[in-house]
Amino acid sequence: MAMTHQQDLKSVFTTKDLNFKPAAKITKKDLNAGVTKAEYAVRGAIPTRADELKEELKRKPGVLPFDDIINANIGNPQQLDQKPLTFTRQVLSILEYPEILRVGPDKLASLNLFRKDALGRAEHLLEDIGGSIGAYSHSQGVPGIRQSVAEFITKRDDGEPAAPENIYLTTGASSAATSLLSLLCKDVQTGLLIPIPQYPLYTASASLFNAQVLPYYLDEGSNWSTKSDEIEKVVKDALEKGIKPSVLIVINPGNPTGAVLSEDTIAKICLIAAKYGIAIISDEVYQENVFNGVKFHSMKKVLRKLQRLYPGKFDNVQLASLHSISKGFMGECGQRGGYMEVVGFSKDIRDALFKLMSISICSVVTGQAVVDLMVKPPQPGDESYDQDHSERMKIFHEMYTRATLLHETFNELEGIECQKPQGAMYLFPRLVLPEKALRESERLGIEPDEFYCTSLLESTGICTVPGSGFGQQPGTYHVRTTFLAPGTQWIQDWKHFHQDFFNKYRD
Amino acid sequence: MAMTHQQDLKSVFTTKDLNFKPAAKITKKDLNAGVTKAEYAVRGAIPTRADELKEELKRKPGVLPFDDIINANIGNPQQLDQKPLTFTRQVLSILEYPEILRVGPDKLASLNLFRKDALGRAEHLLEDIGGSIGAYSHSQGVPGIRQSVAEFITKRDDGEPAAPENIYLTTGASSAATSLLSLLCKDVQTGLLIPIPQYPLYTASASLFNAQVLPYYLDEGSNWSTKSDEIEKVVKDALEKGIKPSVLIVINPGNPTGAVLSEDTIAKICLIAAKYGIAIISDEVYQENVFNGVKFHSMKKVLRKLQRLYPGKFDNVQLASLHSISKGFMGECGQRGGYMEVVGFSKDIRDALFKLMSISICSVVTGQAVVDLMVKPPQPGDESYDQDHSERMKIFHEMYTRATLLHETFNELEGIECQKPQGAMYLFPRLVLPEKALRESERLGIEPDEFYCTSLLESTGICTVPGSGFGQQPGTYHVRTTFLAPGTQWIQDWKHFHQDFFNKYRD
Repeated sequence: MAMTHQQDLKSVFTTKDLNFKPAAKITKKDLNAGVTKAEYAVRGAIPTRADELKEELKRKPGVLPFDDIINANIGNPQQLDQKPLTFTRQVLSILEYPEILRVGPDKLASLNLFRKDALGRAEHLLEDIGGSIGAYSHSQGVPGIRQSVAEFITKRDDGEPAAPENIYLTTGASSAATSLLSLLCKDVQTGLLIPIPQYPLYTASASLFNAQVLPYYLDEGSNWSTKSDEIEKVVKDALEKGIKPSVLIVINPGNPTGAVLSEDTIAKICLIAAKYGIAIISDEVYQENVFNGVKFHSMKKVLRKLQRLYPGKFDNVQLASLHSISKGFMGECGQRGGYMEVVGFSKDIRDALFKLMSISICSVVTGQAVVDLMVKPPQPGDESYDQDHSERMKIFHEMYTRATLLHETFNELEGIECQKPQGAMYLFPRLVLPEKALRESERLGIEPDEFYCTSLLESTGICTVPGSGFGQQPGTYHVRTTFLAPGTQWIQDWKHFHQDFFNKYRD
Repeated sequence: MAMTHQQDLKSVFTTKDLNFKPAAKITKKDLNAGVTKAEYAVRGAIPTRADELKEELKRKPGVLPFDDIINANIGNPQQLDQKPLTFTRQVLSILEYPEILRVGPDKLASLNLFRKDALGRAEHLLEDIGGSIGAYSHSQGVPGIRQSVAEFITKRDDGEPAAPENIYLTTGASSAATSLLSLLCKDVQTGLLIPIPQYPLYTASASLFNAQVLPYYLDEGSNWSTKSDEIEKVVKDALEKGIKPSVLIVINPGNPTGAVLSEDTIAKICLIAAKYGIAIISDEVYQENVFNGVKFHSMKKVLRKLQRLYPGKFDNVQLASLHSISKGFMGECGQRGGYMEVVGFSKDIRDALFKLMSISICSVVTGQAVVDLMVKPPQPGDESYDQDHSERMKIFHEMYTRATLLHETFNELEGIECQKPQGAMYLFPRLVLPEKALRESERLGIEPDEFYCTSLLESTGICTVPGSGFGQQPGTYHVRTTFLAPGTQWIQDWKHFHQDFFNKYRD
C-alpha cells in the first residue's frame, strides 16, 4: 500500500521540477525579535532543569540527594496540596454531562454524590450558557455570568456599581493582560509603567508588543510599598525622553511581593493617571489571598469614590481590572478562567477590544462557569454552604500557616531577609550573599541569585525562581518561592541547605 | 460607612495636588494600528446585528417577520443541533469530579450514568494529568496526551511516525495559528501566502503582526482547487517587490470552500516550500468533515513520503499542522482544545515557540483531555463503542444530508451557483446579482454581498457572512453559510427570500 502511494507521488514531478536547490530554512534571525527577546523565568531555565531532574528520578530512583521535586516556582495550588472546592466541581461535573440532571435528585441522593443546590445551580448555568458548554459563547462571555460578576463587584466595592457590559470573560488573567496590551502598545514610543519586582508577564508583553518598559521600583524597606512620587518621577523622565507613558500596571496584592495597597496609595495612583492621561491595568488576581488583617481595596472602588468627591478631575481615568479563577480559594489554574472590568475607555477602543477578542472567538466556557461559581459561592442556608465554608477555611489556614513558618524560618537565618507576608502566594526574600558566593557565580557566568536557586534545586529538589526573573534593584538579589507545597519538611530542607551554602561560601 | 471612607480619601490630597488639568484620554489613534485595522467578519457587523434582533425578539415576540435567529455564520455545532458525544462527556464529567470514581462501578451501574470504560478512561487520564485538571499542565501540554496524539497521527498517516515532543496542545487551533504567526512575522517585509477565500483569522493575524498578505486565489471553476502555479507566481512577484514570503497557509479541507486537497496538490505545495524556504501552516481542523468519498491526506504524510522519495530535496521543509476539537465529530467549540504538530523547525525556533506558549502558561486542561478523547475514541469491543459509533454516524448523516439539500436548493435558483460540497461545514455559493441590486447596494454604501446577507437576515433571521469577509476575486460576490442549522424550514425560507430578492431587483 505504502509502495503504491510512493509510486503515485513519483509521477507528480518531472526531472526538471526537481532540479532545484533546496532553500535555506528560516532561522532565529528571521523571527519577530519581540518574541525572541521576551523573557519568562517562571517557566524558564530552573523549572526546565527541575523537569529534567523529575524525569531522572523516575528513571533512576535514589540517584539524587532528594526523592521528589518541590515545585515552589509557580502558584499552582492543585499541583500541590490544595483540593478543589467540592461545590464547584459538582456543578462542573454536571455541566459536562447534563444527563445527571435527568436521573432525578432522589436517586442521586442515594449515591451522596451531588448536592441539590449543585444540581440547581448547574441547571441554571446551563440555561444561561444556552444549553451546552460545548458551544462557543458570545465573544465577551456568557451574558448571565457577566451579570453575576457585576453583582459581585458591586457588593465587594461597598455598593459602587458595576455593569455587565463592562465585563469581559477571559482565558485567565494572562490573556486579558495580553489582549489589552496588544491593543494599547502603539509603537516603540509607547511606555509601560511596570512595578519592579513584577510578574514577568508584563515585561514579556512589553517585549512582544515592542513597547518600552518604564520600571518603577517598589520600596522593599517599607514592606514593598508603592510610592506614587517614584511613579511620577518615572513618568516625567519618560516624557522628557519622548516616550509616552500609556499604561500604568499595578499588581495588588503584589506578585512576587505580596504587598497590599492602601486606599490612599490607590488614590495617588489614580491622580497620576488623571493628570497624565495614562490608562491603568490593575492586576487583582490575588484579591482573596490577604492575611494578617489586611483589607483588599479595588482600584475601581477608589476611582469611583474620587470621581464623586472631585467632580471632573478623575473622569478621564481609563481602567481595566483583572481577576482570575487560578488563585484565591478556587485555585483552578488548569481551568483557565478570569474576567476583566473595563471602565472609562471610549467606544471605539471598546469596539477594537471586542474585535480582538472575537478573533479568538471566546474563552473556554467551563472556565466562564468557574468564574460564576467564584463570584457567587454557596450562601449561609444553602445545602453546600457548611462544607464549602470549611473547605475555604482549611485552604486559608494552611496557606497562612505555611507563609508564617517560611517567613520565620528565613528571618532566623543569616544572609536572608524577608518582609512580612500580607497577601498573594509568594515570599520574595532578599539574599545578602557573601563575596565568595558572588565570585563563584561570576566564575560560572550566572547571576548570584540564579546560582543560589540552582544550588537549592540540585541539593534539595526545591524549585524556585531567582529575583532576576522579576526584576530587582541593581546589586540586590532575591528568590521567589510559593508557600503552597504541603508539609514542613521542605522548609527544613531549605534551612539546612541555606546553612550549608553559607558555611561553604562564608567570607 | 461610605461617608467615612470618603472623608478618609479627602485627606489624601492637598489643594495643590488637585490643581491639575485632567489630561486627554487615549483615543483610537493611540492604539496599535495592526489591531484597529484587523477585520474578522465571522463575528462582525451582520452577526452583531443578528444579536440585536435576537434581543428584540425576546423583548417583543412577534414583532419581526421571523421567530428566531438561525446562526449560520459560524461553525458552532452545539449551538445548533449537534449533541456532544456521550463517551466524551462522561469522561469529562468524571475528570471534573473524581469523587464519582469512589462510588464504585456497581452502584453507579444502577443509575446507568457512567459506563465502565468511561470510568477507566477518566482514571487513566487523571493519572496522566497528575491528579487534577485544576492544575496548570506542562506548557506544551500533558505528556501522556501528546503521546496519544502522536499515535493517532502515525495511524492516520499510514504509519508515517509522529513524536510527542513535536506536539503542542493549544487553546483551539486559533491560538496555535496566532502563536506561530506572532513568532514568524518578523516585520513589514514578511509575506504570508494566504488562500483566497480564507478563514479571516489569517488576514487578521497578518494585520495584527504587521505582515503583508500575499493572496493566492483558489479556482472556483474547478471546485475551488489550489493551483501551485498560481502560488509560485505570487511568490515570485513578492520576491521582486522585496517581500520575503515566509509562511504559506493552507486550509485543508478548505474554509469557507470545503475543497479537499489531493496528494498531488499537497506534493506540489511542498515543492514550493522546499524551493523557496517557506514554512507551511496547514490548517487541518476539518479533517474529519469529508463527504462524497473524498479522502483527507495530511500535509505531514505527503511531506514524509517526498522526503523518502527524493532524499535531500525536501529536508528543509518546516511544517506546522493544526487540528481542533471544535469541528468534526466532537464539535466541542466551547471547550477550546486543539494541537499542532511542528516538524522541520530548528531547535532555537522551537525554544522560542515554547517560551511564547509558556508566557500564557498552558492551554485549558479539560480541552487537552478532549483532544485525547478525539484521537483515541472507543474501539470495537469497548462498552461505549456501539453508542459512540451510532452517535457519530448520526452527526455525519445529518450534516451530509443538509449539505446536499442546501447545495441542490442553491443550484435550482437563478443567480446563485454553488460548487459541490466535499468537506468542512460550509457552502460558499457565488451570487450573480442583477445590476439593479448592485446599484441599490452602491446607494446604501455597502458591498453587494453584504447587502444580500443583510436583506436575508432582516427578512428571515438567517445569519450568514458575506464573501467579502473571506476574500473573493474582485467583482465576484459570495455568501458563506454553515449547513449545521437543524431542520429544513430555514432552507425553504432562504429559497423564498432569494426568489423575492430577485423578483424585486431583476433588471
